[in-house]
Amino acid sequence: MNIALIGQGFMGRAHSNAYNQVVHFFDSKRRPRLKLLCGRNRESLGAMAERWGWEEVTTDWREAVTRADIDAVDIAAPNSLHARIAIAAAEAGKMVFCEKPMANTLDEARRMVEAARRVRTMVWFNYRRVPAIAFAKRLIDEGRLGRIFHYRATYLQQWGNDPSRKTGWKLDRVVAGSGVTGDLLSHLFDTALALNGPISRVSAMQSTFEPGREIDDAVAVLAEFANGSKGTFEATRYAVGAVNQNRLEIHGSRGMLAFNLEDLNRLEFHDASLPASEQGPRSILVTAPGHPYGTNFWKPGHIIGYEHTFIAVLGDFLRALDEDALFHPNFEDGLEVQSLLDAVERSSLTRAWTTPETVAAQRPPNQP
Amino acid sequence: MNIALIGQGFMGRAHSNAYNQVVHFFDSKRRPRLKLLCGRNRESLGAMAERWGWEEVTTDWREAVTRADIDAVDIAAPNSLHARIAIAAAEAGKMVFCEKPMANTLDEARRMVEAARRVRTMVWFNYRRVPAIAFAKRLIDEGRLGRIFHYRATYLQQWGNDPSRKTGWKLDRVVAGSGVTGDLLSHLFDTALALNGPISRVSAMQSTFEPGREIDDAVAVLAEFANGSKGTFEATRYAVGAVNQNRLEIHGSRGMLAFNLEDLNRLEFHDASLPASEQGPRSILVTAPGHPYGTNFWKPGHIIGYEHTFIAVLGDFLRALDEDALFHPNFEDGLEVQSLLDAVERSSLTRAWTTPETVAAQRPPNQP
Amino acid sequence: MNIALIGQGFMGRAHSNAYNQVVHFFDSKRRPRLKLLCGRNRESLGAMAERWGWEEVTTDWREAVTRADIDAVDIAAPNSLHARIAIAAAEAGKMVFCEKPMANTLDEARRMVEAARRVRTMVWFNYRRVPAIAFAKRLIDEGRLGRIFHYRATYLQQWGNDPSRKTGWKLDRVVAGSGVTGDLLSHLFDTALALNGPISRVSAMQSTFEPGREIDDAVAVLAEFANGSKGTFEATRYAVGAVNQNRLEIHGSRGMLAFNLEDLNRLEFHDASLPASEQGPRSILVTAPGHPYGTNFWKPGHIIGYEHTFIAVLGDFLRALDEDALFHPNFEDGLEVQSLLDAVERSSLTRAWTTPETVAAQRPPNQP
Amino acid sequence: MNIALIGQGFMGRAHSNAYNQVVHFFDSKRRPRLKLLCGRNRESLGAMAERWGWEEVTTDWREAVTRADIDAVDIAAPNSLHARIAIAAAEAGKMVFCEKPMANTLDEARRMVEAARRVRTMVWFNYRRVPAIAFAKRLIDEGRLGRIFHYRATYLQQWGNDPSRKTGWKLDRVVAGSGVTGDLLSHLFDTALALNGPISRVSAMQSTFEPGREIDDAVAVLAEFANGSKGTFEATRYAVGAVNQNRLEIHGSRGMLAFNLEDLNRLEFHDASLPASEQGPRSILVTAPGHPYGTNFWKPGHIIGYEHTFIAVLGDFLRALDEDALFHPNFEDGLEVQSLLDAVERSSLTRAWTTPETVAAQRPPNQP
Repeated sequence: MNIALIGQGFMGRAHSNAYNQVVHFFDSKRRPRLKLLCGRNRESLGAMAERWGWEEVTTDWREAVTRADIDAVDIAAPNSLHARIAIAAAEAGKMVFCEKPMANTLDEARRMVEAARRVRTMVWFNYRRVPAIAFAKRLIDEGRLGRIFHYRATYLQQWGNDPSRKTGWKLDRVVAGSGVTGDLLSHLFDTALALNGPISRVSAMQSTFEPGREIDDAVAVLAEFANGSKGTFEATRYAVGAVNQNRLEIHGSRGMLAFNLEDLNRLEFHDASLPASEQGPRSILVTAPGHPYGTNFWKPGHIIGYEHTFIAVLGDFLRALDEDALFHPNFEDGLEVQSLLDAVERSSLTRAWTTPETVAAQRPPNQP
Repeated sequence: MNIALIGQGFMGRAHSNAYNQVVHFFDSKRRPRLKLLCGRNRESLGAMAERWGWEEVTTDWREAVTRADIDAVDIAAPNSLHARIAIAAAEAGKMVFCEKPMANTLDEARRMVEAARRVRTMVWFNYRRVPAIAFAKRLIDEGRLGRIFHYRATYLQQWGNDPSRKTGWKLDRVVAGSGVTGDLLSHLFDTALALNGPISRVSAMQSTFEPGREIDDAVAVLAEFANGSKGTFEATRYAVGAVNQNRLEIHGSRGMLAFNLEDLNRLEFHDASLPASEQGPRSILVTAPGHPYGTNFWKPGHIIGYEHTFIAVLGDFLRALDEDALFHPNFEDGLEVQSLLDAVERSSLTRAWTTPETVAAQRPPNQP
Repeated sequence: MNIALIGQGFMGRAHSNAYNQVVHFFDSKRRPRLKLLCGRNRESLGAMAERWGWEEVTTDWREAVTRADIDAVDIAAPNSLHARIAIAAAEAGKMVFCEKPMANTLDEARRMVEAARRVRTMVWFNYRRVPAIAFAKRLIDEGRLGRIFHYRATYLQQWGNDPSRKTGWKLDRVVAGSGVTGDLLSHLFDTALALNGPISRVSAMQSTFEPGREIDDAVAVLAEFANGSKGTFEATRYAVGAVNQNRLEIHGSRGMLAFNLEDLNRLEFHDASLPASEQGPRSILVTAPGHPYGTNFWKPGHIIGYEHTFIAVLGDFLRALDEDALFHPNFEDGLEVQSLLDAVERSSLTRAWTTPETVAAQRPPNQP
Repeated sequence: MNIALIGQGFMGRAHSNAYNQVVHFFDSKRRPRLKLLCGRNRESLGAMAERWGWEEVTTDWREAVTRADIDAVDIAAPNSLHARIAIAAAEAGKMVFCEKPMANTLDEARRMVEAARRVRTMVWFNYRRVPAIAFAKRLIDEGRLGRIFHYRATYLQQWGNDPSRKTGWKLDRVVAGSGVTGDLLSHLFDTALALNGPISRVSAMQSTFEPGREIDDAVAVLAEFANGSKGTFEATRYAVGAVNQNRLEIHGSRGMLAFNLEDLNRLEFHDASLPASEQGPRSILVTAPGHPYGTNFWKPGHIIGYEHTFIAVLGDFLRALDEDALFHPNFEDGLEVQSLLDAVERSSLTRAWTTPETVAAQRPPNQP
């Protein structure tokens, strides 16, 4: 299975690592071959290809799309290129993997879904596959939390406050599309949809702290879920003191779950069905054989890191391919996230509660 | 200084304890005398008076207001009585201490302030005087957090989900006025005003999970502070897994502070002025001589509990009296909180961003 | 019940507080009357008596022992006075309460027990009555930990490293008898005996970091318990970074318990009988009605502090008196601790494994 | 650089991963080539070779030693084979990498050092290269902890209590040599020597909880360091509730450090040179550019896992090779650990304080 990767930045490295490592930890009939690496800087491209084992390089992403020997096109380029490349790749019949946010506008995302109706797609919402998050989903699906009352998610970073990091494409509205809304809130929404189902209405407040900047440095959202629970979301690059805190707390009638990406091997579980005097949040190290991905990586207590979430995404994608099964999150799932991002932007602009355009309100609660 | 206390519930006990204990930990020319205890249940009233050392009892609160030998009237009765008693006491020239929320409506609170212009007042927002919160205020006032970006406060309780606790005056709209908005969010707002200054606008979502109930079981708020920082607030009685988590996180350009009432002796401080590789949230045990109230109670590391916050309120009030100084939070401070609660209710009803009626927008940022 | 308290220092304050507060939180036929305060500094004595409500003062402790109207003598004087006062008080037929360590030598402790055979005694090992520790004992007694393998206790303080605190009676061998061995390790041993039963053998290392000092600044101990479990103990005043960390970890075949005095309202419980994938240390806030002392103090989640452990000791002592029941820890329990301290000192001196002289080896495991 | 790996178990996988990954994260002139995999089970050997990219397989470890095209022999076989293979490999002029414990006896270790005088060696004490531990060493070496008073290390696992894991070579005295002493305590000692210098004397207590078992299930040690500080060590497989807790606490006159392998990306640092009221343990996420290995792996806050410690060992070894520099820990370092393990066993048997045979007492304190 020949891969063409477009992008030579941080995500390019993370994906390259996953292509190398997936065969060590997951079983599949398929073996990704690191065929073609695309990027704009030919010089550093060569070094990166050598380091990670890419066989060929090119500075023209169209090559990835047009070459007959490429099976899957992986888009880790800046956001404004996602739609164009994805549509071209899909129309060329390639599998398409796309970094988040899927697109810069809801319209782009819709066209991507349309173009990709006949190919297999994946969006790199890797945090769904943190073992602790996958374990959370299992507990919720088993009814261990009962009726959900509250869903509280924050994604806190601090680099916006770093005077040495005042430029880059992530801060450029034309390229990035948005600030933390697309970059961080999209992650929170994908996980929320997976764990707690559709969101029917939002009230949002986007903020920009840096004078003259056109993208959002922070965003906060009140949300109503279709299952009747209430949500709050917050994403920011100005949470000084928080390096990479993708945090989650869910309260239901039968229990509570809590998670923090900085301690990604742990899940806190409060089981309210225990005797009252014995209740308390339990810190579970999600590395045991009975846990999701518990037999893929190392032994209990031998923790995994950030990179393993990408490996798990890829491992599951290959297995779905082997089994001819539908993979999630695919472009349709990405579209649902995009419709929420769109609703957030409109709500913030109009200062009104807003309904996402494509609410999958039909889905029953707790069964995303 | 003769005290009349109205109320024989949980708050009645907490105040009684404070009157007994304040002389042991604070120096003042005045010594509170537990003169008169008022409550509706004469039988349990006698036992309570004997246990806590009240000299006399009555079932008629008007006695507290009319007796010449009473210097201060302390209102720990259900919310719907606050305004009536406070106004009567103030008009009788008594000092008035009032439990939170100060009133059931903004109009009531305004009339209380009006009636009490010539007497000394206090609202029992005791959490301002948690040593860790007082220390947080000192650090903020010293500029240690720099420009504030984010203020995030949650007050999480779980007893709403307890099937054995489905009745009581706190769940009765006529008596309580509101649910968690008055009961818990009021605490969050008082602390926010003290630490981060006025709030200029809110978007709120009140929720009721129990069918047929008329008060709010949960509330979530987006807020804009006058100093340009952005706030999120959440209060709920359905946060299963959280017993009494009044939590706070503040991020500024120079640092971060975090607090949780369940660990009230600790303050987390992230100092972003340290070398980058040495930065991290620091867990400070706020029990040392250099800390607020550090010399009032025990030795470093010998922690205090919930009750000490009431003792500290009273100790500071007596000192203000000795020094003929203005005490905070007084009824005017309580009114500002009430105007925010009012804005929250209107915003939730109308689903629109709402400005509190009495924003003290003149106050400069960070100098509440 | 008329009390004479000997001692006007930190412990004098803590005991005074308990005498005032016990009637507010515990039911008893008896009400302690703060009759006589004894101390060597008459001037500060008057201020202390006034602050805490002592009716009379004296600078001669013999008055406490000889006056007919005194029912109980409470010894919070420096260690070297314990034996003399206790024996005199016991011989005068008074109840005797004594601060820890009970005595400066094993011989003193033996003579105290001998003298007090006919009176009621108590040693202020207050940490047994931290609700979390009492809850730990209940869980152990119910077999929830199964067979105990490991008992690990540390008492870490840092003030030894403080250049401003290089004098005081606690550092004087003649007065204090020992350093951390008597001051801190005694607490660890009392709790260990209560939770895990007798200790049969120790290997100890006492250390002095300050040149010229004659007492131990730190002590570490390997221990064998009669029930077959293995223990490690460590106490020090040079654990920079630890303010008052009396910590405990117990591992058994069915679970684990952990505690830290700096967070005294919490107990960590790992229940190994849960499904493997759901196991993890559970942080229980020991403030609920079903917990020890859960109905004595405030509501769930409204935490208590250091002082409440003294109130609980006194409350339980009064109840034992009401019920004519044996109270623990009494002088015989104190003697067992003293024999362990003695064994530790001998082991450290001789550098050999040492057996305490009065091992109560008859007691079955887990049933202290 | 052609590698022959002997061992197809858990360590075999961890090393295989490191050989694949080191080129992605570290720069070196050399590139390890996965030439030959040796193991006793030919069937699973093929699958493992295919999965991890080993070019050839053999069931005879002598092939690894005798083949001219092998540059380095990596020993991940059971402990009883270490000495034999290492000596043969060294005598054949190969570089030798050896899993811990280096040997089953002090004599074996001595012979290994002797045989390997002319070749480069490495012992896989990977925890030295946890970024947080390497950062701890930097802080200590810079004097940030001042004079060291206390060193407290525990390695807590629970699988000994698992009824399904009562067999295996790690429990066989002939093969494993010892139980937790060689398996876990060896790690603690290597880190202690690196951070705090030589240990001059130990008192040890080895314990076996399982009837009929000949190896130690637990061990506890009192230790005196050459620099005057005092240590306690404990390792066990019966610490129910602890999955893989390699924990460390160091207290010095100027600060404190704490670490736990289950949260290996964090280091707690208490800086006692800060103002007293601002002191507290600081939780540093050791993933920033200024941290050890901070630029090798991912971005700040994107945590690494267990496997990265092996990659870092290998990366540093290759760099040492490039620079013709001495690598640590090598066989001489391993011998020093072995002499401590030997002293522990003798002390436990004789119940006496014991001096390791090869104390490097010449090294000045704090400069390991």
